[in-house]
Formats: sequence, C-alpha cells, structure tokens
Amino acid sequence: MGQLTGGDPSLLRRINSAVVLRALRDTDCATLTEITRATGLSRPTVEGVVEGLAEAGLVVERAAEEGTARRQGRPARRFRFRAEAGHLLGLEIGAHRVVAVVSDLDGRVLGTQTRDVDEKAPADERLERLRGTVAELLRRTGVPRGSLRAVGVGTPGIVEADGTVRLGTALPQWTGLHLGERLSRSFRCPVLVENDANVAAVAEHWQGAAKDTDDVVFVLAGLSPGAGSLIGGRLHRGHGGAAGEIGALHLLGREATPEALLSTTDEPLPPLDEQAVTEVFALAREGDGSALAAVERFIQRLVHDVAALVLALDPELVVVGGWAAGLDGVLDPLRRELARYCLRPPAVALSLLGEAVVATGALRLALDHVERQLFAVEGAVGA
Amino acid sequence: MGQLTGGDPSLLRRINSAVVLRALRDTDCATLTEITRATGLSRPTVEGVVEGLAEAGLVVERAAEEGTARRQGRPARRFRFRAEAGHLLGLEIGAHRVVAVVSDLDGRVLGTQTRDVDEKAPADERLERLRGTVAELLRRTGVPRGSLRAVGVGTPGIVEADGTVRLGTALPQWTGLHLGERLSRSFRCPVLVENDANVAAVAEHWQGAAKDTDDVVFVLAGLSPGAGSLIGGRLHRGHGGAAGEIGALHLLGREATPEALLSTTDEPLPPLDEQAVTEVFALAREGDGSALAAVERFIQRLVHDVAALVLALDPELVVVGGWAAGLDGVLDPLRRELARYCLRPPAVALSLLGEAVVATGALRLALDHVERQLFAVEGAVGA
Repeated sequence: MGQLTGGDPSLLRRINSAVVLRALRDTDCATLTEITRATGLSRPTVEGVVEGLAEAGLVVERAAEEGTARRQGRPARRFRFRAEAGHLLGLEIGAHRVVAVVSDLDGRVLGTQTRDVDEKAPADERLERLRGTVAELLRRTGVPRGSLRAVGVGTPGIVEADGTVRLGTALPQWTGLHLGERLSRSFRCPVLVENDANVAAVAEHWQGAAKDTDDVVFVLAGLSPGAGSLIGGRLHRGHGGAAGEIGALHLLGREATPEALLSTTDEPLPPLDEQAVTEVFALAREGDGSALAAVERFIQRLVHDVAALVLALDPELVVVGGWAAGLDGVLDPLRRELARYCLRPPAVALSLLGEAVVATGALRLALDHVERQLFAVEGAVGA
Repeated sequence: MGQLTGGDPSLLRRINSAVVLRALRDTDCATLTEITRATGLSRPTVEGVVEGLAEAGLVVERAAEEGTARRQGRPARRFRFRAEAGHLLGLEIGAHRVVAVVSDLDGRVLGTQTRDVDEKAPADERLERLRGTVAELLRRTGVPRGSLRAVGVGTPGIVEADGTVRLGTALPQWTGLHLGERLSRSFRCPVLVENDANVAAVAEHWQGAAKDTDDVVFVLAGLSPGAGSLIGGRLHRGHGGAAGEIGALHLLGREATPEALLSTTDEPLPPLDEQAVTEVFALAREGDGSALAAVERFIQRLVHDVAALVLALDPELVVVGGWAAGLDGVLDPLRRELARYCLRPPAVALSLLGEAVVATGALRLALDHVERQLFAVEGAVGA
C-alpha cells in the first residue's frame, strides 16, 4: 500500500509480523514459500520476520524442534506458531466461590481450579483466596508465572475502564475497590477486569449457546441480576460500563426485589442467599402452592427485565444463565412474552457453559488482548 | 504495505483515489507536491490518481477553473475537490408532512421543501406527495436529477435492511410496504430507508445536541414513541432493525397507550391526533387540573421508557425530541428519575434540530453512503 511507503518502519515491521504470525497460526506449520504465498510479502521480508519471531520465541522450526537431521537436498524448512510461548488466566470472583482457568496462546485450557469463599468474606480475604487459587493452579499445571501474557477477571458490579469497581453490592467492600490495580500486584502482565454478565456474554459467543450469532444478550438471572450484550460481535459496555444493569429496572415499577418476590412468607429471603432460593425452586417443583406463586412472581419480573432489554437492543438471541436450579422453567414464559411484544422475537436459549461461563469469558478477554498484540493488523492502517 | 504488493491492482487504485480525494477535501486546494506529502504516495501515483479523478469530475484544477493564464516559470498547479460534482437528498415521510432537503457532496444544504399531507392519506398518495416535493425542490435549486448520488429516507416504523417496512402503525398502509423499492423507481442512485428515530439520532450527532458524544439515545416522544441510538458513533439498528422500539414497553406493565394517558376524559384521544395532544399541553400550561394530571401520567410513562433504555444501553446523553409543545416540561422529571436509578446518569437535552431532525438525519445517511464510496480506506485492507 502506497500511503505507508514513507511511514514508520517499526509499524510496518509490526504489521508484517502480525500477518506472518496469523498465517502460521492458521496452518499446522508452513514453509517460507507457503508463508510468502499466503501473506503476499516478499521472500526476504518473510525470512526476516520469521527470524525475529523465532528469536522472540513465538515461532519454532519444526525440524530443529524434532531434532531430526535435515535430509540431503535441503528440504524446505517448516515453521509453526508456538502456542506454548505464553499463557493466559481467566478468573471469576463470585459471591460463593472463586475460579481460575489457565490456557495457552491458542486458548486451549490446561487446567481449572475452584475454591469456595464465604459470601460475607471481606475484600482482602476474597482476593487472598483468589491469589491462593491461582498459585495452586499454576503449580499444578506447571505454568511459570512469568509466562502469563494477560489475565482476565469477571466480577459482579459496575466496572470502570481502569478496573475500579464503581458499584458492587453483591460482594462485601466491593464498591470503590481498585480491583484491577490490586490484582496487578500479583502479575507482571496486563489485568483486564470486566463485569461478570459481560464476560458471560463473551463466553457464550466464544464457546457456548451464542456461537452462531454476533448479536446476543446474556441474562445473568439471580438475586443480583444483570445482563451483558454483544453488538456486532463486540462487547457493549456502555458509556460508563453500566450497560445491562437491569437490576435497577424493578425500581421503576411497583415491583420488589428478587428476595421479596421469591419469598413464601411475609418476610423477604435473606439477601443474596442462593441456598434459600434453591429451596423455593425445589418446593415449587414438588407442587407447593406458595412456592409456585413465588417462582411465578420471580419469572414475571425476569421476563419484564429481559423484554425491556430486547426492545432496547433487538438481539438475535437471548441466553439465560447464572442459576443452575429452576432456570429451565423460565424459557417458555420468556418466549411467550417476547413473542407478544416483539415483531421478530429473539431466540431464547439456556447457557451452555453453566458454572464455567464467567471464568471462560474472562479467559477470552485475556486472549483477545494478546491476539490484538500479536495478530492485529486492523487499525494499524488508516489515512 | 507489503501484503498488498501482489494484490488486486484495481483495489489499490481505488484506495489511492480515496486517500487523495480525502486529502483534497480536507484542504481548500492543494498542489501535487502537497498531496504527495499528505498522502505518502509517490509523485507519479498522485499524478495518475488526480488525472483519473479530474476525468471523473470529482477534482478540478484551480487555474483552469478560474480561466487565468498560468504565469511564467510554471507555478505549481493547484487542485480542489468538486463538492458540486454530485448531490444528495434527505427525505422525511411523516404522518402530517413530507420534507425534502438537498445538499452537495460536502453536505452543504442548498434547499429544503416541506408539504403537508393528510394523516389518513393512503400510501400511494403519500408517496406521490413526496415525489412532487422532491421535483419542486430540484427545480427550485437547479439540481439535475442525474446529479443525485444517494437518497436517505426517514420513516416511522420498523425498517428491514432492504428498505421494506416490517411494521408501521403510524401511517396508513405502511406495514409491508416495499418503501425502498418504490422510491428507487424515481431515482437512479441508491435509496437508503431508515427508521425516523434512528436517523434523528444520526442528525443530532452530526449537527445537533449530540455533537460531542458518540454514545447517545434519541427519544422521539409522541403518540408513536420510539428511540434511536448511536453506540461508539455508529447507528445501532438491532438484529432486525427494531432496536429502540420502546413503544411496546408500556404493554409490559399495567400502563396504557399515550392516547389514554393524555386524555382528560374517560375516552382516549383519537389515535395519532397530535392537535388534541397540543391542546392538552396548552390546557396544562394554563393550570387545568385534569390536563395537568394527564400530562403527568404521560411524562411518567416516558420516563419509564427512557429509563429502561438507559439501563440497557448506558449512553452518555439522552436527547428528547419529536414534539415541539410541552417537551421542555419532560426534562426535569427525566433527570430526576434517571438520577435515582443510574449511577452515572446520562445528560439529558432537548433536540436542537427540531422539525428538521429527521430529514437532516436522512441526508446524513446519504452522505455517509457516498463518503464510503469516495473516501473509504477502512475495510479495504485486511489479512
């Protein structure tokens, strides 16, 4: 492209590296001739770029790696992308547990570690628990901490772009916590913090129920409801990171909190007590009248929240997740109501990733970050 | 850029043309040397591209144009972008009127034409009225029909990507109308049809209250309420073009239609009768008790709809427009309620474009289309 001829040579080198690396990742392994053909770069450029990538440890020669002597007649050297050259972490910080998952640069998961945590645990204790979980995971999988290239984190609450929790009522001492900064002390790589419903949407798009669409709303149903959405395949955070905070929607009407809706007595359930919720759902399944009424109230509220999101965003698909118990009973009323209000009602599906959804989405965030560094060409060019 | 060296030469030529044209548009006029410097292209490439653009009528040499003989010593030739080389139309089709506005390729408005139309007029009559308005405008401004490069259209209703109105209850015979196709018969250039609230959002971002933000929701308040939003500066249409169709939101609660809310009697106002609404607002301003109560009910409903949109999208700014009368009374209650539910409530502003907002947004759509053709470099490059 002409307009970059006189441009920044280091930018050009970076773009060429990304192009070569992407070509290598997309094949099992390739010769210099094949790379030249796939990229349109000149042979000397490809040789220089591959040499640089090999020095950086991102590319390795196949023959050298296998220790086999090259046959006579100088057969073509073959190179491959070293997905093991770096690693990524996906972390979930929840009310009742913390989860860590580690992968290589291809996103291939090498191990997962979960630990329970008290829902009343103060922030320091929760973070310490998370650190211990990560340490155990790295030890168990043999991944050196220095090999980590990026860490993604999913947490309840509204998260600022800098990783500060602007509001987080689901976890003690969470509002105002400089979560990104606190976690950064444990890692030498970037730490990316995001709302849990948002990363869940990312996860379902990557590996779950939303693989086939770029326009999806993920609804985290539960006592602290929230939603995340992808628009055109990209996470929609909103101007202040608060998009999809439908938990406040019920304040608009005369409706009460999930704890009040799900109560079978005059008193609301204890705040964020998911065990109590599970019991109500279990009672309802057994046919208990007041439990059935409570579940019905809760479902109506959920349907209202989701319908508002759907009218605002018009997604192709709504994925419901967040609670293992009882959620399947939500799908049919949801489909029925959405069909009433929407001309082209979105498909409605249950989360396919279940309990892994937040950590998986956090891992994908980390992977996105690294891929932008290694493979991105877009944005580098522009007039 | 290396990877395109072996690529499609016509693509390369198109990109180079776009780069040169953009450089010329951004300056008053420029010499070949200045273009070479601004674009990074080689001198022979710039000469070839400028020659091609001059042949296409998009660029003209300044001296030749001014008819002045060049001085001795061969002073540098200067070229400028010919914004008058093509024209654009922005059209509004409303319940009570049709509007047409025409501009040059810089978006400079050359004239506007408005005609009333009966709210009960059948589709054919409404379209004929629009055609007559366009013909009159072109005649009056002296713009030849063949000079039109694109036509943008704003209409009530949910509009498919192909210009078909999927649902349009505000205008008779509008649902199912192949509006894009029908209008295309009158023009030899592309006709782009879009929902009126969506183009209004585009207009406020271009020239109105939302100039300084890329994350805005435009609320078309009225008897047929709707909303349009820009996310990151781009129109969010939704998967099926129905994003922001908050008119259905009130169905979710126990609330009634705007006509019922605004009635001062037991009977709802006649459907879509904005004159009746104006009277209710006028009565309320005079202190009439039942009118005040009616306006209050209507405002509460509007606030609820907007709050749902804001929670779903988290915009930086909400612009309210669509009704000249009484809307200023909406701003304070809206700000107050949003502050209750939102951590970082969006700013709330009145539309600055008033009655011109839909036609202006439609014009911007047409301009976007032409700019993508003439100036776009993005998307042309990719590995």
